[in-house]
Amino acid sequence: MILLSELFDIQSVSGDESSMTKFLINLILQRKDTWKVVPTVYVGEEFHDCILLKFGNPRTAVFAHIDTIGFMARYENQLIAVGGPELEDGVELVGEDSLGPVFCKLKIVEENLFHDFPRAIGRGTCLSFAQNLRIDETFIQGAYLDNRLGIYNALQLCEDLEDGWVVFSTYEEHGGGSMPFLLKFIMENAPVKQALISDITWVTDGVEHGKGVAISIRDRYIPRRAFINKVIDLANKSGVAYQLEVEDVGGSDGREVQFSNYALDWCFIGAPEDHVHSPNEKVALYDLECMIGMYKYLMAHL
Amino acid sequence: MILLSELFDIQSVSGDESSMTKFLINLILQRKDTWKVVPTVYVGEEFHDCILLKFGNPRTAVFAHIDTIGFMARYENQLIAVGGPELEDGVELVGEDSLGPVFCKLKIVEENLFHDFPRAIGRGTCLSFAQNLRIDETFIQGAYLDNRLGIYNALQLCEDLEDGWVVFSTYEEHGGGSMPFLLKFIMENAPVKQALISDITWVTDGVEHGKGVAISIRDRYIPRRAFINKVIDLANKSGVAYQLEVEDVGGSDGREVQFSNYALDWCFIGAPEDHVHSPNEKVALYDLECMIGMYKYLMAHL
Amino acid sequence: MILLSELFDIQSVSGDESSMTKFLINLILQRKDTWKVVPTVYVGEEFHDCILLKFGNPRTAVFAHIDTIGFMARYENQLIAVGGPELEDGVELVGEDSLGPVFCKLKIVEENLFHDFPRAIGRGTCLSFAQNLRIDETFIQGAYLDNRLGIYNALQLCEDLEDGWVVFSTYEEHGGGSMPFLLKFIMENAPVKQALISDITWVTDGVEHGKGVAISIRDRYIPRRAFINKVIDLANKSGVAYQLEVEDVGGSDGREVQFSNYALDWCFIGAPEDHVHSPNEKVALYDLECMIGMYKYLMAHL
Repeated sequence: MILLSELFDIQSVSGDESSMTKFLINLILQRKDTWKVVPTVYVGEEFHDCILLKFGNPRTAVFAHIDTIGFMARYENQLIAVGGPELEDGVELVGEDSLGPVFCKLKIVEENLFHDFPRAIGRGTCLSFAQNLRIDETFIQGAYLDNRLGIYNALQLCEDLEDGWVVFSTYEEHGGGSMPFLLKFIMENAPVKQALISDITWVTDGVEHGKGVAISIRDRYIPRRAFINKVIDLANKSGVAYQLEVEDVGGSDGREVQFSNYALDWCFIGAPEDHVHSPNEKVALYDLECMIGMYKYLMAHL
Repeated sequence: MILLSELFDIQSVSGDESSMTKFLINLILQRKDTWKVVPTVYVGEEFHDCILLKFGNPRTAVFAHIDTIGFMARYENQLIAVGGPELEDGVELVGEDSLGPVFCKLKIVEENLFHDFPRAIGRGTCLSFAQNLRIDETFIQGAYLDNRLGIYNALQLCEDLEDGWVVFSTYEEHGGGSMPFLLKFIMENAPVKQALISDITWVTDGVEHGKGVAISIRDRYIPRRAFINKVIDLANKSGVAYQLEVEDVGGSDGREVQFSNYALDWCFIGAPEDHVHSPNEKVALYDLECMIGMYKYLMAHL
Repeated sequence: MILLSELFDIQSVSGDESSMTKFLINLILQRKDTWKVVPTVYVGEEFHDCILLKFGNPRTAVFAHIDTIGFMARYENQLIAVGGPELEDGVELVGEDSLGPVFCKLKIVEENLFHDFPRAIGRGTCLSFAQNLRIDETFIQGAYLDNRLGIYNALQLCEDLEDGWVVFSTYEEHGGGSMPFLLKFIMENAPVKQALISDITWVTDGVEHGKGVAISIRDRYIPRRAFINKVIDLANKSGVAYQLEVEDVGGSDGREVQFSNYALDWCFIGAPEDHVHSPNEKVALYDLECMIGMYKYLMAHL
């Protein structure tokens, strides 16, 4: 799990993902020759901070977003949210501006957000939760399991993937915006019919820790039932433990597949977490294992 | 009106429209050789559950959505909405899961939705209002006039249409998502300059039963005034009764035309209904007649 | 400033921009041969009411929206909003319907909007604030500084622009819809990597009158930080006064660049105003000067 702790130490608030992109591209370039199939790698300014890997002849694309929720410095010690972070007074935040590292606490006064750093923080500086990663025999807990575990799953998948796109997207926590150009590139270069969203979902009264990966029938958006049925049929054959999710809120990169210019089916598949968008997101290691197993099976059989 | 009652008995909740697609494609294949112009038919997996008919050399495309609002089974007898159904305690719902047909009632407890079926319903099962279609000399009343009457209008139009696209879209009641790829296909194969939305609107304090088809100047979205003026000019020449609608809420497939990648004008034209999104939607037959007459005139003259 | 007062007298409520388009195209055709580089002009039905000017070999596109907020006549003396106008009882509104000019006052009764015109106003007629333009040595004040000053800035830029797109967009105040097809045309004809949004922003507790043009690090949407950093670096070199804006509400044509099908960076740059979306919008002339200076510098150096 050494990879995991490195992955968790990088700041990558929506809009400011370049550090994560550099980390990932280095990792991919180091590892790709050991993978069963060596992918074509697409990265650089024309893809902003996204990375696309094309393995063999893709039928399915996997998307894992590399950004996280966070905060941005406004004026006079004010903070504003990036995405939807859990707001808890006193939580520790970290970042860096032109004067150096920033380490402060979130202060909530009458629903307005402030920091307690002794000096002004440069306008527009991104802050995120201080990391405190804890792994025991059963659980992993810390900030940004959403979506560092989705990235981890995608990287594990790369090891023996034969055909498929593995794509690292940006901006997801704050409305999206990279998916349309990523989908255009995919569909014009090696088109697919279906997409899987490698992301983390919620523990609810129907989805529990330790019961397997969640296959989402819907969140705020509704993917095409004909495809979901095909996924569930394969999941039954896979032997991997899974749970069916039915929610009416929440979204993912799947939303942008749904509203894209292409007739693309999509399904969100991911381990559930507790304490969503807080510094204490918590996922059962068994569910993460099931997530990896399910992706390996589906990418081979879809 | 035999066609109508068949049309009304098919379940087609947003995301799960395949039964309606099968019904329509059978009907189209049986009838198309009797139509004045035999259209090219586009259907199949690459169009998901949508159908496109191309007649002659299209200048205008007509869109009728084939999905309906409804409900989906969640966990522990909970239901969640698909689209925006009217919520009335005790209303009858129907559907089918892996164990067989489902027939139950909607129960509302402190704004949460439940069903009263004696057994658990499979997660993600779609339910919709039990149909109870009533037609007398003046009105048609039942579930899903929105948008079964829009489909009916489109099919009537096919009989003597010379030039145009007639398109059956999906997902409209739950945010859309098929329009972008349908528009892309149309614009890359036989491009048009304008679109008419064949859908059902609302009786309000300015739009009444029996006063003719409604031509919408705006709903939540605002089409280009230059085009609306052209439509109204033609409507005046048509001799068909119509009413002008001006609303600031509500949307349709027109929204996705507005925000598409193409400079396409659009206008919503449809009969008004009472008791929207309930099992008792009610439309005046005269307004439906005017809708059909107006579409025939506009598709010939626009 | 003669151009300015003409610009301010034209009605151009979202959806009904054709008068402004005519005014602008006449102006452009009269002036373009005096500009340093004569642009290719794209205008006409295939661009709806938008205008695109291509200068040299574009690297960057500038967008200025030509529509304004306003009102629309509904039924029985009711009005509904177009975009988000400030609602103040008794404010003067002007427009024209088939019976002639309309001049009336806005009446607000229990949050519902009415007009006091002695006769009915044609359904769907657009109304906007009566103009009362005031210019002194320090400030310009009146209706629609947003976005007549953005248009003015774009026209000033044309005078010595060598390479770039200058684009006049529509519908911006009411959700947008022209940007997707404008971007498609640009990217398929003379593609760019970046976009600047020539629009007017807000005076807030961090952005003041007379402190220079605002460069927006974010509004409701977050552009890519790597590009914003590049803009700020150039702004520092430009010698032009500027202020950094960090907001979590508000949007612009930049939103549609963010969610477009292209990997396009964007940044909103504009003078701040007080009394937003009222008949008394107020901008410091110095900030307008800085806006023009900054655009000239950035378009040459980006």
